[in-house]
Amino acid sequence: MSCQSVVVINPNSSRFVTRGIDDALEPVRLPGGPTIECRMLEEGPPGIQTQRDIEQVILPLCRLIADERSAAAFVIACFSDPGIHLARESTRRPVFGIAEAGVTTALNLGNNVGIISILPTAVRRHNRYFRSLGLDSRIAGDRPADLDVRDLVDKERTLKRMTETGRQLRDEDGADVLVLGCAGMARYRIELERVLEIPVIDPTQAAVGMAVAAVQLGYGGRSA
Amino acid sequence: MSCQSVVVINPNSSRFVTRGIDDALEPVRLPGGPTIECRMLEEGPPGIQTQRDIEQVILPLCRLIADERSAAAFVIACFSDPGIHLARESTRRPVFGIAEAGVTTALNLGNNVGIISILPTAVRRHNRYFRSLGLDSRIAGDRPADLDVRDLVDKERTLKRMTETGRQLRDEDGADVLVLGCAGMARYRIELERVLEIPVIDPTQAAVGMAVAAVQLGYGGRSA
Amino acid sequence: MSCQSVVVINPNSSRFVTRGIDDALEPVRLPGGPTIECRMLEEGPPGIQTQRDIEQVILPLCRLIADERSAAAFVIACFSDPGIHLARESTRRPVFGIAEAGVTTALNLGNNVGIISILPTAVRRHNRYFRSLGLDSRIAGDRPADLDVRDLVDKERTLKRMTETGRQLRDEDGADVLVLGCAGMARYRIELERVLEIPVIDPTQAAVGMAVAAVQLGYGGRSA
Amino acid sequence: MSCQSVVVINPNSSRFVTRGIDDALEPVRLPGGPTIECRMLEEGPPGIQTQRDIEQVILPLCRLIADERSAAAFVIACFSDPGIHLARESTRRPVFGIAEAGVTTALNLGNNVGIISILPTAVRRHNRYFRSLGLDSRIAGDRPADLDVRDLVDKERTLKRMTETGRQLRDEDGADVLVLGCAGMARYRIELERVLEIPVIDPTQAAVGMAVAAVQLGYGGRSA
Amino acid sequence: MSCQSVVVINPNSSRFVTRGIDDALEPVRLPGGPTIECRMLEEGPPGIQTQRDIEQVILPLCRLIADERSAAAFVIACFSDPGIHLARESTRRPVFGIAEAGVTTALNLGNNVGIISILPTAVRRHNRYFRSLGLDSRIAGDRPADLDVRDLVDKERTLKRMTETGRQLRDEDGADVLVLGCAGMARYRIELERVLEIPVIDPTQAAVGMAVAAVQLGYGGRSA
Amino acid sequence: MSCQSVVVINPNSSRFVTRGIDDALEPVRLPGGPTIECRMLEEGPPGIQTQRDIEQVILPLCRLIADERSAAAFVIACFSDPGIHLARESTRRPVFGIAEAGVTTALNLGNNVGIISILPTAVRRHNRYFRSLGLDSRIAGDRPADLDVRDLVDKERTLKRMTETGRQLRDEDGADVLVLGCAGMARYRIELERVLEIPVIDPTQAAVGMAVAAVQLGYGGRSA
Repeated sequence: MSCQSVVVINPNSSRFVTRGIDDALEPVRLPGGPTIECRMLEEGPPGIQTQRDIEQVILPLCRLIADERSAAAFVIACFSDPGIHLARESTRRPVFGIAEAGVTTALNLGNNVGIISILPTAVRRHNRYFRSLGLDSRIAGDRPADLDVRDLVDKERTLKRMTETGRQLRDEDGADVLVLGCAGMARYRIELERVLEIPVIDPTQAAVGMAVAAVQLGYGGRSA
Repeated sequence: MSCQSVVVINPNSSRFVTRGIDDALEPVRLPGGPTIECRMLEEGPPGIQTQRDIEQVILPLCRLIADERSAAAFVIACFSDPGIHLARESTRRPVFGIAEAGVTTALNLGNNVGIISILPTAVRRHNRYFRSLGLDSRIAGDRPADLDVRDLVDKERTLKRMTETGRQLRDEDGADVLVLGCAGMARYRIELERVLEIPVIDPTQAAVGMAVAAVQLGYGGRSA
Repeated sequence: MSCQSVVVINPNSSRFVTRGIDDALEPVRLPGGPTIECRMLEEGPPGIQTQRDIEQVILPLCRLIADERSAAAFVIACFSDPGIHLARESTRRPVFGIAEAGVTTALNLGNNVGIISILPTAVRRHNRYFRSLGLDSRIAGDRPADLDVRDLVDKERTLKRMTETGRQLRDEDGADVLVLGCAGMARYRIELERVLEIPVIDPTQAAVGMAVAAVQLGYGGRSA
Repeated sequence: MSCQSVVVINPNSSRFVTRGIDDALEPVRLPGGPTIECRMLEEGPPGIQTQRDIEQVILPLCRLIADERSAAAFVIACFSDPGIHLARESTRRPVFGIAEAGVTTALNLGNNVGIISILPTAVRRHNRYFRSLGLDSRIAGDRPADLDVRDLVDKERTLKRMTETGRQLRDEDGADVLVLGCAGMARYRIELERVLEIPVIDPTQAAVGMAVAAVQLGYGGRSA
Repeated sequence: MSCQSVVVINPNSSRFVTRGIDDALEPVRLPGGPTIECRMLEEGPPGIQTQRDIEQVILPLCRLIADERSAAAFVIACFSDPGIHLARESTRRPVFGIAEAGVTTALNLGNNVGIISILPTAVRRHNRYFRSLGLDSRIAGDRPADLDVRDLVDKERTLKRMTETGRQLRDEDGADVLVLGCAGMARYRIELERVLEIPVIDPTQAAVGMAVAAVQLGYGGRSA
Repeated sequence: MSCQSVVVINPNSSRFVTRGIDDALEPVRLPGGPTIECRMLEEGPPGIQTQRDIEQVILPLCRLIADERSAAAFVIACFSDPGIHLARESTRRPVFGIAEAGVTTALNLGNNVGIISILPTAVRRHNRYFRSLGLDSRIAGDRPADLDVRDLVDKERTLKRMTETGRQLRDEDGADVLVLGCAGMARYRIELERVLEIPVIDPTQAAVGMAVAAVQLGYGGRSA
């Protein structure tokens, strides 16, 4: 089993974000467990913000998945879960999307899920997606921190905005668990959890947690 | 981290079932990871079948949780998730119920979830619970294999009944992922998956997978 | 029929609350109708506020029900409906929970139901329960008056807080019928209804009304 | 209080049906309680089967309600709840519809409600209504016994068809409580309950039970 | 086909409103297409505001429909869709209600629908109706502009109130498409759309658009 | 207005299908109305059956939309509504998807919508989409006629299979309106409606009907 691997694909082409994802996965790496490897999509845009960004990465991302023979499971590390259905059609190995995995994990850690999104334009897309998953009744709120993905380099401002957004989700919307609505914000998770005093989920970590178990247990892949 | 542990509690007092659970968790045990320990509830009934069985185990089960200082996370290994809310009120450490964790994991591996229950009387209880979780729109069906928990020793008959039930869930109800609706059936998982050709989830394995990740990442516990 | 009785069980051990419940049932007592008797659970805590309080009363409460041969129907007089499913498993006679009966009665008297709860911690528990009943789409809001159950002796403060809470439910959440989210608040019902000008339901009165009719008509009990 | 009355209006002009309703209410009449009086709508059709029948009775029915000064509460005794919203706009006294009251009562006596309707054409109308009440998730099935309202005089055939229909609702749809989907079938209730072994609700009895309690407690009327 | 007609019925007796509706339909009239004729219900009240107004128009409105042999399809031009089910029972030709057609059209032009109602009392009626249609999850909000139907002659005040209401729906409730909740407000549509920068639907125009296509394509009528 | 056009894009590259769509739109073309032009996506596959087929057409399809300056509104003529969200992000002009438009139109012509799909693999995709639209409670059933898109040339077999499927949707699932779950089946619509005696919607015709009205009325486009 030790030779099996979970491949995590960041569908944008930011080395900064990819490295952040890679660092965030350190706690779930174990000797004897599946290896966890992060890939960056060279063809991807610097950040995934628009519907166009999403559609553009689907074909190369799924090609990467189909070609990646060594992986036992995949994680698509973008909170829009781009290409999740084609990916599942492309391989019999399990594929996890971080929005789906992040929210379904959060359901185990709280009653009402709050999403800290980056951009206001993402909220309607998320709403449609959560509705398609039949999970909308458990979403307490989805609020944008109103940050540009590229702003994430200013850590202080980012943390401040995310804390404010998380506090609104907790105090105004009644959320008792939060999910970070973006692949690249894991570094703020522990600090947010400490300040807001409710569980905070990084969706990539959650998805990789599921993928590791899926590899250990040898689940078959799902239908598209 | 290596000194942290996930404690899995079988709320019935069957050594056979407890040993079965313990064996089933072998694949998710890793050197360097959290230890995974199974406890049996000495005060529990031989099997949990009725609402009375459920209510009777809640207080001793939650006492065990409150007293278990060494655990970093808990799994309640009974598909009725007995005492889950009191357990979460009793500790700040994460507590996973296998029904909740099994179904939320299954949402990542299929569109429509089928539940293979043991007894017909459990189905209404499950329905109420899935509705309380807001997940009922994703449940394709819940069918009893009509086995007494104590019958599980007759492996051949058990496998046959479970296979028939799973086939009905797949072919008549449209399920494309199955969850075993009982803590003690993991030994049939791989064979069922092989025959039915859709993913089959053992809920205790799924919950322990989530608990391991929760310990690795240090999530705070949820509110009750 | 005149010899039949509805037994109302207050699962806490407060004589003050039990007497308040008993007094509140005077209007539904009629010569020739079923007698209505209130019992207090000696083993119960002084008030039921936490999940622990709920779980602790279930077994003695259901023992009391099973042993009470003379009753033709039962009402569990606590807004968390503790033990409702075990009670229904324990007897073939009808058992009414005051939350379920109060809200289903309210559906006949308004479009959007507002719940005046006592404590903030109850709201999430109620939400899960209303969702399990499939009634959440009719709940306009559930707001805590933020009173300790034992504070109910300060009538003026209690009425003031309940009136403010009811006004918020009516004016901000759009409720046009209110349910008192506690067994012991019937004495405020008429005054609240007068001031707020929308129907206000005391859930114990509502449940007893249903139980009286159930006894008169001889309904069989339900499955658990 | 003894001088107050519940007025039950049968919106069709069948004396046979009106007398049947009147007889069925005997068990809920008590000395010292509200009187229960049945009225027939002289202008009504012999039976209410079509949407036209429904619309035609609304204005005279609501005129009768507005003119009936002595009543403290009303019951509209037709399973389509004709004119319920206008009735509630026409008076501040509580008005109960038997479909609404029958189903909300049934929610307290079972998990999954089965409706025994008379005619196939009623089923879609019921579905729309249950959806408008937000109660559709609790309806296990609605099946027509396929009887003409006027056939109800052939008691043997009627009971046979209703029993078959009830058995299908119980065994194929999973209903564990039944509601008779018509005002005039109370005489079959007890026999159906005896044969099918699950609670069977006559909706007029259920509505009158609620109305009696509403009068005893003096609820204000609801908004339209 | 050119001899076929869509008959639009304004169920109130206001010539001003009828003329407004007629004018608003100019853009969908085409040479060679179905003619579009507006009728006023002579028996109707000056405006339809209460439940009584609604019920009173149903029978004459449906008589008009049954008697109107030349029409190939009908539109009921009142946002309460009065008599829609009887109308569909009365004719095999398609009948469109403007609330139903307006909202279902809006679903194609936005994610979250906002309704600009006239009177506060209409909101609960709309809610019940949208729930009966199974469309409530797509309604972002329904807010009254708090105008008397007869005030609509003061165009400046009307536009101002509607703009304010639409802005609240967009900014506070998240609506990204608006529906005018009244038959007679089409003249404000374009200005509202210009100022608020999201699509604004006049429901009568939407229903007539659907009716024209229905006539062109020769759809059979629906069951009641 | 006469110079404005609705552009209908068939995202597959079958001339046969494109011609069929074009022919089917004859009834909605009118002198003086918007012109209706059909385009074929040269880059598209011969038929759209898999998730891969869907994803592959999105970018060229949306490029075609962005480049098509003369169109006033667009229809995407494939029942998976490929690229609908990117199309709406790409232009401020209205874009209609035939699944969305077909089903929302059907809601006006029946209570319970049945979908005649082509392939079994489409059903889960449709379910997810209807759930994302919040319309799943109105879908009575979605059954595959089990035809290969390329089989559509065998008209007799196609009609036979579609009739059988429609009959099952009507008689077993309770559908009272049908939607053809494919862009190229309009030629069977009238015959199906005649045999099954319930309205049958061709989704492309329905979407074009909406688009024509949108152009006539000048709706602004929606947000993505």
